[in-house]
Amino acid sequence: MITTEPVRRAILLVEDNPIDLDLTRRAFARSQLINPLEVARDGAEALAWLPRWEAGEPLPLVVLLDLKLPKVDGLEVLRRFREHPLACSVPIVVLTSSIEDCDIATAYRDGANSYIVKPVDFDKFLEVTSQIKLYWCLLNQPPAAHPAPPR
Amino acid sequence: MITTEPVRRAILLVEDNPIDLDLTRRAFARSQLINPLEVARDGAEALAWLPRWEAGEPLPLVVLLDLKLPKVDGLEVLRRFREHPLACSVPIVVLTSSIEDCDIATAYRDGANSYIVKPVDFDKFLEVTSQIKLYWCLLNQPPAAHPAPPR
Repeated sequence: MITTEPVRRAILLVEDNPIDLDLTRRAFARSQLINPLEVARDGAEALAWLPRWEAGEPLPLVVLLDLKLPKVDGLEVLRRFREHPLACSVPIVVLTSSIEDCDIATAYRDGANSYIVKPVDFDKFLEVTSQIKLYWCLLNQPPAAHPAPPR
Repeated sequence: MITTEPVRRAILLVEDNPIDLDLTRRAFARSQLINPLEVARDGAEALAWLPRWEAGEPLPLVVLLDLKLPKVDGLEVLRRFREHPLACSVPIVVLTSSIEDCDIATAYRDGANSYIVKPVDFDKFLEVTSQIKLYWCLLNQPPAAHPAPPR
């Protein structure tokens, strides 16, 4: 008998800093994340997901978006996702070291669902990652994986 | 010496059902919520906060919004908050018993930050309430309590 596992929707992490990327991977592994973790290493790689979703790949449960990114910056990625007919509703959590009021205000104004400041301490980072996983992968009811395009 | 305690920003709970309201109050009390819990018992009471914020009261950390409300329904409250120059960025978590795809899709399209289905079981409800408190009162970096109106 062939059984097929349900497809688990991914977390899309948009992060260019290799140290932060490694830290996040390790933190998610420790918090026993069973969803796939997809990584975009700059803003252009994040935007390259748009045609993949148009082609039928399921939307992620949540996008974790750094702000200071090469090629296309995080706030521009946020705006481009929000303008897109499929990505417009995907939960986007800004995960950044910036505590600038203007970054916080702009991120919310442009459609971020949440804004989290990366802790410097690894144990605190573990806790934060675990909370993010619990909240966005287990508690939150996500928008559809394959939303109908607007009429 | 007179010391003043920092003002803790509130959670605004928009809920008409007295049983659910009581359950939420008890759950927050058990999770040792130290932020004030403000309650609006219908959509009109929720909208009555807009002039209070215009008059200088701090924005809440998060609004927990039921969908099926008397007078003005939850999705209309969501839209009116999102159109308002001060309330447009306040985090709004839909907290509802509805698992209808169209409610989920409409809530995200109209600017909900998150959508949570109320568990029926009290112990699960406690867990959910505790997660909401941790995430929105401790982890999330909220928009300013007194945002500058847009220029």
